[in-house]
Amino acid sequence: MDPMDVARSLYAQDRSADAFGIELLDAGPDGATVRMTVRPDMCNGFEIIHGGMTFLLADSAMAFASNSENDMALATSANLDWFAPARPGDVLTAVATRAGGGRKSVVWDVRVTNQDDEHIAQFRGRTRRIGQPIIT
Amino acid sequence: MDPMDVARSLYAQDRSADAFGIELLDAGPDGATVRMTVRPDMCNGFEIIHGGMTFLLADSAMAFASNSENDMALATSANLDWFAPARPGDVLTAVATRAGGGRKSVVWDVRVTNQDDEHIAQFRGRTRRIGQPIIT
Amino acid sequence: MDPMDVARSLYAQDRSADAFGIELLDAGPDGATVRMTVRPDMCNGFEIIHGGMTFLLADSAMAFASNSENDMALATSANLDWFAPARPGDVLTAVATRAGGGRKSVVWDVRVTNQDDEHIAQFRGRTRRIGQPIIT
Amino acid sequence: MDPMDVARSLYAQDRSADAFGIELLDAGPDGATVRMTVRPDMCNGFEIIHGGMTFLLADSAMAFASNSENDMALATSANLDWFAPARPGDVLTAVATRAGGGRKSVVWDVRVTNQDDEHIAQFRGRTRRIGQPIIT
Repeated sequence: MDPMDVARSLYAQDRSADAFGIELLDAGPDGATVRMTVRPDMCNGFEIIHGGMTFLLADSAMAFASNSENDMALATSANLDWFAPARPGDVLTAVATRAGGGRKSVVWDVRVTNQDDEHIAQFRGRTRRIGQPIIT
Repeated sequence: MDPMDVARSLYAQDRSADAFGIELLDAGPDGATVRMTVRPDMCNGFEIIHGGMTFLLADSAMAFASNSENDMALATSANLDWFAPARPGDVLTAVATRAGGGRKSVVWDVRVTNQDDEHIAQFRGRTRRIGQPIIT
Repeated sequence: MDPMDVARSLYAQDRSADAFGIELLDAGPDGATVRMTVRPDMCNGFEIIHGGMTFLLADSAMAFASNSENDMALATSANLDWFAPARPGDVLTAVATRAGGGRKSVVWDVRVTNQDDEHIAQFRGRTRRIGQPIIT
Repeated sequence: MDPMDVARSLYAQDRSADAFGIELLDAGPDGATVRMTVRPDMCNGFEIIHGGMTFLLADSAMAFASNSENDMALATSANLDWFAPARPGDVLTAVATRAGGGRKSVVWDVRVTNQDDEHIAQFRGRTRRIGQPIIT
């Protein structure tokens, strides 16, 4: 099965991706890319993007990559470092790549940048496959 | 200044807290509590809450605690462990407490539970005060 | 089998525990306590304990707890926050407790303090049981 | 001042580097490389390297890089993912590179591999400069 087809199928059912305007640009077993434009309703009391929204975008990139071989993968833990704020109108791109691990347990790095290629945040997450198909 | 007044002021300007229906229940220099009901548009393609939304809720609890002494605090990094899924209708409570550190740099633990007191996720985040008042 | 017997058996074969003078004070499925006196040869160029030695002590506490039910547990990831330095002669105690998870995958918190009960560091680690006995 | 001279000066005073046979191969503001041969007294009860020793090696690489501009840098937090065990006689190399951040606060990635270039562990750590020279 084509990894991008699996990712597109997951994406089609993903209510939060739709609610936040997350675009799926690329996905495969070695990585994925998603994009989102920051909106005012994603911002906190300092008028910058809520740190959790940046995490959510990075986590989405990991999800599309880790599930792309049609074997459901659960995220078990993740960490994020924030480097620079993002504001309404900024376009954030999150690129997930494999940082290590094997076939079943994988560690992913996700780099989040803005439209000027400024490094906004860096994510590291862990997924574990559970041996269940997504598309049957 | 009353820590709860500072937190309420931040909360009033927090567009994402409003968009996600996050309630501020308590906030002070040693911790904070927030609550959110899971909605379908917070869920991923597996019909469970997007892991990033759980992170966002925990991160909010940390933000209300870390800023409550009217000295702006930036989150620098955080990690989350997911233990159990949450579904639409579940009511999640996030309780932040100090895990260590000093006055300027603080490490926070946030415990996220559902309406049955099931342990959904555990967060650890780091904040750093920058010496700027929030309410002037 | 008595959890403390399993821990003592592991401890007896642990060459690094011996090399570093780590004492095993308590161990069971819900936690463990170890103790170590800082020596000059555990210190870095700033004459304070090497951060990795503090990590190693915390990691040992987690290992004795996670393996105490005679089912081998592998550490998969961990993080540490350093709060205060320790110097030669300081006596560090690391107390591991369960932070969450289930029977197979567990998340542990380890608090490291010195002889004055000062909070030196806080550790969070993840272990996974593999279904192999330690003592046969 | 030459970054490698600063690193060598730190290394010369580092009792733990000497005790563990850590070699300093390279150091500069953008990264550093260290190497260590696994000894039996670095191993735990499973006869594999104590996870804390792998962390210590990675942490050393970060320390030599982060201090190389003669401005003392404190490590504030770090996390490690373990992928494969190492045994007595294995030669581990830890290569630190910048993962993000600015001049004062830096996030480092450290890749630990063995003599066969197998990926043993991956580290991410955070340092903060405090504005004090190391060599005066």
